[in-house]
Amino acid sequence: MSLEIDKVNLLIEALPYIKALSGKTIVVKYGGHAMESKEIKKAVILDLILLKYVGMNPVIVHGGGPEINSLLEKLEIKSEYHKGLRITDKETMDIVQMVLVGKVGQELITLINHYGGKAIGLSGKDGNTLLSRKKLIEGVDLGFVGEIEKVNAEPIISMIKAGYIPVISPVGVGLDGESYNINADVVAGEVAAALKAEKLIVLTDVEGIFDNPNKPETLITALQAIRARRLIENGVIASGMIPKVEACIKALEGGVARTHIIDGRQAHSMLLEIFTDAGIGTMVVN
Amino acid sequence: MSLEIDKVNLLIEALPYIKALSGKTIVVKYGGHAMESKEIKKAVILDLILLKYVGMNPVIVHGGGPEINSLLEKLEIKSEYHKGLRITDKETMDIVQMVLVGKVGQELITLINHYGGKAIGLSGKDGNTLLSRKKLIEGVDLGFVGEIEKVNAEPIISMIKAGYIPVISPVGVGLDGESYNINADVVAGEVAAALKAEKLIVLTDVEGIFDNPNKPETLITALQAIRARRLIENGVIASGMIPKVEACIKALEGGVARTHIIDGRQAHSMLLEIFTDAGIGTMVVN
Amino acid sequence: MSLEIDKVNLLIEALPYIKALSGKTIVVKYGGHAMESKEIKKAVILDLILLKYVGMNPVIVHGGGPEINSLLEKLEIKSEYHKGLRITDKETMDIVQMVLVGKVGQELITLINHYGGKAIGLSGKDGNTLLSRKKLIEGVDLGFVGEIEKVNAEPIISMIKAGYIPVISPVGVGLDGESYNINADVVAGEVAAALKAEKLIVLTDVEGIFDNPNKPETLITALQAIRARRLIENGVIASGMIPKVEACIKALEGGVARTHIIDGRQAHSMLLEIFTDAGIGTMVVN
Amino acid sequence: MSLEIDKVNLLIEALPYIKALSGKTIVVKYGGHAMESKEIKKAVILDLILLKYVGMNPVIVHGGGPEINSLLEKLEIKSEYHKGLRITDKETMDIVQMVLVGKVGQELITLINHYGGKAIGLSGKDGNTLLSRKKLIEGVDLGFVGEIEKVNAEPIISMIKAGYIPVISPVGVGLDGESYNINADVVAGEVAAALKAEKLIVLTDVEGIFDNPNKPETLITALQAIRARRLIENGVIASGMIPKVEACIKALEGGVARTHIIDGRQAHSMLLEIFTDAGIGTMVVN
Amino acid sequence: MSLEIDKVNLLIEALPYIKALSGKTIVVKYGGHAMESKEIKKAVILDLILLKYVGMNPVIVHGGGPEINSLLEKLEIKSEYHKGLRITDKETMDIVQMVLVGKVGQELITLINHYGGKAIGLSGKDGNTLLSRKKLIEGVDLGFVGEIEKVNAEPIISMIKAGYIPVISPVGVGLDGESYNINADVVAGEVAAALKAEKLIVLTDVEGIFDNPNKPETLITALQAIRARRLIENGVIASGMIPKVEACIKALEGGVARTHIIDGRQAHSMLLEIFTDAGIGTMVVN
Amino acid sequence: MSLEIDKVNLLIEALPYIKALSGKTIVVKYGGHAMESKEIKKAVILDLILLKYVGMNPVIVHGGGPEINSLLEKLEIKSEYHKGLRITDKETMDIVQMVLVGKVGQELITLINHYGGKAIGLSGKDGNTLLSRKKLIEGVDLGFVGEIEKVNAEPIISMIKAGYIPVISPVGVGLDGESYNINADVVAGEVAAALKAEKLIVLTDVEGIFDNPNKPETLITALQAIRARRLIENGVIASGMIPKVEACIKALEGGVARTHIIDGRQAHSMLLEIFTDAGIGTMVVN
Repeated sequence: MSLEIDKVNLLIEALPYIKALSGKTIVVKYGGHAMESKEIKKAVILDLILLKYVGMNPVIVHGGGPEINSLLEKLEIKSEYHKGLRITDKETMDIVQMVLVGKVGQELITLINHYGGKAIGLSGKDGNTLLSRKKLIEGVDLGFVGEIEKVNAEPIISMIKAGYIPVISPVGVGLDGESYNINADVVAGEVAAALKAEKLIVLTDVEGIFDNPNKPETLITALQAIRARRLIENGVIASGMIPKVEACIKALEGGVARTHIIDGRQAHSMLLEIFTDAGIGTMVVN
Repeated sequence: MSLEIDKVNLLIEALPYIKALSGKTIVVKYGGHAMESKEIKKAVILDLILLKYVGMNPVIVHGGGPEINSLLEKLEIKSEYHKGLRITDKETMDIVQMVLVGKVGQELITLINHYGGKAIGLSGKDGNTLLSRKKLIEGVDLGFVGEIEKVNAEPIISMIKAGYIPVISPVGVGLDGESYNINADVVAGEVAAALKAEKLIVLTDVEGIFDNPNKPETLITALQAIRARRLIENGVIASGMIPKVEACIKALEGGVARTHIIDGRQAHSMLLEIFTDAGIGTMVVN
Repeated sequence: MSLEIDKVNLLIEALPYIKALSGKTIVVKYGGHAMESKEIKKAVILDLILLKYVGMNPVIVHGGGPEINSLLEKLEIKSEYHKGLRITDKETMDIVQMVLVGKVGQELITLINHYGGKAIGLSGKDGNTLLSRKKLIEGVDLGFVGEIEKVNAEPIISMIKAGYIPVISPVGVGLDGESYNINADVVAGEVAAALKAEKLIVLTDVEGIFDNPNKPETLITALQAIRARRLIENGVIASGMIPKVEACIKALEGGVARTHIIDGRQAHSMLLEIFTDAGIGTMVVN
Repeated sequence: MSLEIDKVNLLIEALPYIKALSGKTIVVKYGGHAMESKEIKKAVILDLILLKYVGMNPVIVHGGGPEINSLLEKLEIKSEYHKGLRITDKETMDIVQMVLVGKVGQELITLINHYGGKAIGLSGKDGNTLLSRKKLIEGVDLGFVGEIEKVNAEPIISMIKAGYIPVISPVGVGLDGESYNINADVVAGEVAAALKAEKLIVLTDVEGIFDNPNKPETLITALQAIRARRLIENGVIASGMIPKVEACIKALEGGVARTHIIDGRQAHSMLLEIFTDAGIGTMVVN
Repeated sequence: MSLEIDKVNLLIEALPYIKALSGKTIVVKYGGHAMESKEIKKAVILDLILLKYVGMNPVIVHGGGPEINSLLEKLEIKSEYHKGLRITDKETMDIVQMVLVGKVGQELITLINHYGGKAIGLSGKDGNTLLSRKKLIEGVDLGFVGEIEKVNAEPIISMIKAGYIPVISPVGVGLDGESYNINADVVAGEVAAALKAEKLIVLTDVEGIFDNPNKPETLITALQAIRARRLIENGVIASGMIPKVEACIKALEGGVARTHIIDGRQAHSMLLEIFTDAGIGTMVVN
Repeated sequence: MSLEIDKVNLLIEALPYIKALSGKTIVVKYGGHAMESKEIKKAVILDLILLKYVGMNPVIVHGGGPEINSLLEKLEIKSEYHKGLRITDKETMDIVQMVLVGKVGQELITLINHYGGKAIGLSGKDGNTLLSRKKLIEGVDLGFVGEIEKVNAEPIISMIKAGYIPVISPVGVGLDGESYNINADVVAGEVAAALKAEKLIVLTDVEGIFDNPNKPETLITALQAIRARRLIENGVIASGMIPKVEACIKALEGGVARTHIIDGRQAHSMLLEIFTDAGIGTMVVN
């Protein structure tokens, strides 16, 4: 029985957090290695369902790089790169879209429904949710690599109101009807800004941002946007972490109150961030 | 950190219970010694607020015997009794009403609001919520002791919809406008039936119903209504426990799914009942 | 029959007044000796019900001094005074609250319901309607004597919309959950301002404000706020009339169109003010 | 002042009647000589506006025989009759419709709006409110004399809900789009039945129905439908009174609670019927 | 079959026009000789019904000069004129109103209902839709000739929302309750402005506005308001065309996007204007 | 101009069809070779958008066999067959789902949005729309070949209400969260039944059902369900046409009024069926 008593005491400890976020929107970016473990995936999904049931409105934006690579390999399609970005031709774009919308997104939806939530998927093409355009890097055409022109929040909001957890696949659509491959971190930041979310949580594969990645004790728990930009410039924040930090900055500019980059590999790290005062990951603030 | 991880694991364990009762009404009878301890009172109130925030609709019906006695004593009003029931004259009825509506109810409301909930009080007179009539015991007139004629659920429901926790004081009103003192257990049972609540939880001062009160191991965890009636007849269930059991039976007859008599003296016993599988108190079933 | 014809002619005469106030809110302060006579009380209540039925939204704020004194006496609690204000200790505050919320308010509600209206009571604690703070008079601590910090109109408005006549008891609540005894006239003025009422009607025990109280012919029928302030300063308006006039001024500042101090001892004086052109009482204007 | 006090006392006397009919629909047939006097017309209109303001839903069905005759005479159109019914050719039907819809109805609407109400006119053609068919009397074709096939209540109800007093002109429309001249009493009875009105009030030119029209003391104050039918058969109820009584019977069959034939020539007779216990006119009951 | 294929191809061609005007309000002035032919009338009505069914909100304002003249003649009422405007005495005004509201309007409503639409008529008196005042021409009193003071759009809008096609008869009402005869073109322009319609279409008896009426090839397809005013001043636009052009200018000033003067004698000219790119009539633009 | 006049005449001819289907749901199965031609695809999409704009509620269920085969081939996945049904292993099911949801569905949505409609995709997994179970053929396990257990219409209906054209991909979900490959004709029939659609239109690659496929003149224009079943038994209706006919029968049993199997290769055949009386394809009736 004393175990049971501990349980309910912990529920009571969660109350202030539940109150503070009741009715608020929380955008969660979920991708990378945190998608590979079955247990972690289940933990993430239970977290989302819990948030929904206790009165918050989670919205998920997913990535899917590994699954895309796996199918491209099977099809023996080779990609060229420019500055680390895959040059995406029409055939590759088709594969990207099929995997993201038809596989990764569907799998998340099925799991949410299976564990007792209610989810519906939205690609950027559904209801023109993610209006996009070609992204040029230093004037170089990377094919169907795109950037967000405008998030059309209406379909997302109407799904939230109808009681669903929207699962957004990061495929954009141009005014010409073309598909665009957009970085999922970027989509998450833009969606959070468009929804004026309370929180953006980016689940990633590391514990957060470090002053010196080799020294775990240099984890930065709170990082101002202005300093974050400087760390990008001088290379302390590099490669895959850059779009995550930029997504946080974009969200902050759009009026999102709090943004967090946390370790998605740790089970229930999202709940840890939301329901406890434990220092977890890196909070990016204005 | 491992403590924090335990916490969120427990939240996840609560999810199935939250899902099952989401949007459901839970009527809670709160009275007796469980009202005397400041800590217990705070625990009960936090429980109610938690239930509201995670999507359930708690409704509280309170008692207040000790406070009534205390004021009657100060005023040197002596009561006569018939078969254990206080004969309630007009002056006494005034005191009863003042204490229940103006003191005990107000205090609960203030505490709920103070700890972050939203409460509004309703006596049976507000909006004619508890239409009542004089109760005759074997033909003897006990003065303003009453019984419920009809619960008018409309004011309770409109408060639930407006986001409040209704706090009901067990003072009835006759068609003639007279006040009636009604047993709070009875009111809770009738209100649960009128609201077609999912659960009625009676917080009391003992651990539950025992086959032999002297032997703790004889706690009855599940009691059928038909057997409960027999235990009342043969005196195993006696005195103050009788109206509690009758309230449960009344609620069951009115379509309430589950009724529980549990130990209000134990902190968060309500959450224990709702959020764990621990055997607690006595469940009365059809 | 000719009597009946007179009747309907008078109804027709009321039509312009009904049209002018249709859908408007009218805050009525009811207290003092006008609460002592059973006939007057019935007349006031019928007036309120009539206003509700012909399409206006009456809100009542009640006092209760005599009933409070009576219970304090019975309990042999003696009060000390500072500048005419009762120093209110915790025990006294409990009595004040019990009498106002649990007796006077409940009685009004019961009468309104009995005569065919629909009423629900609201203390300042219900839904935190009257957020208050300690009132210091020249730096002297009078105990639980309070003043309004903010009227939370939402519970009042939701009751009006649900078809009820709200009956407000002048007990405030502090941020700390403490109870405060607040002058009912002050509450009425603040509530009228918060609701942006069309009218504030203060029912009192005299015919209105006089230039010379000994000369009935000096009744002031219309009094500008600026002049009222001067009359308070030079003592023409004194003692119990001061908070009534200040309530009117507060209401006017909050956007209330008309405020009236009228003789509550005269049956149906409220209807006389609303439905006829007869000069009655003192109108306080900007 | 004592006059003013009488006034408000009379308002209070009206309260029970206001309560009883609050939110209820009252269909009023207005026609005949009661339309000829300017004062009476104003009185009728003020009555309707008052009913609307105090919370009832009046619906007016008007006649217009004298005005029709006047225009027919000016145009030197002569009518033939069969069993007292005008044989209505196409040209006459045009005149009937123009006078009813374009003159009598418009005049009532203008007066209601002028005296502070809100009215909109509806002929039976507007929204196909009065679906009709040719009426054959003993197999004789009377031209465009019609009877109601079905009242389409939707346009009437949507106007009531939008706050208007509907003014219905008794012109029906056939499935073929033809116009039909329908007795206004009949229309009133059918409309009252279709709206499940609380009351049908037929304003006429006599004091009511008499056992012996020459003896005023034989006024029948309450007449059962079954007896009314017998009185029609044996000729005591004759000519223009027949459709009025039949309208009442039709309304009663359709679920209308009370029907009244009263003297429209007496100012405010409608209010007398509604707001006093004075015996006025003849009530037809089931 | 190839005919059928042509049909559906044409439907598809209509799609961009349907999309562009979906949910938009289109005010149509219908009068003059275009009302005399039965076929044309049917065509106009089918056009209105089609517009309603494909998602637009047509509102019709009708004229009725010929029918008025016909009845005046029959009644041997002679009119005097001042500057081409009929001096309208009380008797004439009655005829005007009866014909417009009771005949022409009713006939249009009946036809719309007959062909499968849903129409309700509104004179300017219904719900005080067309508040008007006497119009003085160079200081000369023309009797009940009026001009619009204010269009009260509320009754029109509530009918549109209830699914009806409003049919407006151009009879105004003064603050004094007097009737006013108002030019139907003027009413159409004012109504279009008040509704902030997307389009005003004036159906007239000529093909449009010509630089030289004798040379069909001088049809002005697009006419700027500023030039239109000049053409009125120098007499190129004259007599009956003046109020039509002024109505267009009034509508443009009120925010209407497009105004058109087109040939109502040509079957379905309204649809030609709306659903094709064919140059038809004269478009008046800012 | 005469061409333009023909156009609007044809629009008017469409009016009765528009009226008859206004507000009604039309389920369209789109698949097979009719999806291969770019022009046909555009024609189908314009038809759907037109239906939506003129007030109907089209819902599309798409197939995608050829695209699935193409990807399977590229991946060198070979399928085994049992009685003409592909044995679908896990890897194949993944491909099926990716192609249907992530490619074919997305492409249709993009085209609808591009041509001016508003579409959102729904797989059977989104909101558990298509609850399914394994389908056994004569007890043989075909892997992830499924059949519908229950259509959950709620997500489809909420999208219709929000103004979207739902595009349904025929991928079912089991209670266990497994994916199932379901014949798109079957899904269309079940969805039509669940929505109680007015019409089910199956676009196919032939002109309809023939008594003798070699004789075009033996096209069956109307086929009773009972006869259809006989034709299936005796092999006249065979292979791919069987599920189409069964879908029609299923829909008819579920209360769908009309079902049609028509030639999707003919541009706008859907509009031909809906807006003309031309005999097209085979109507299956009860």
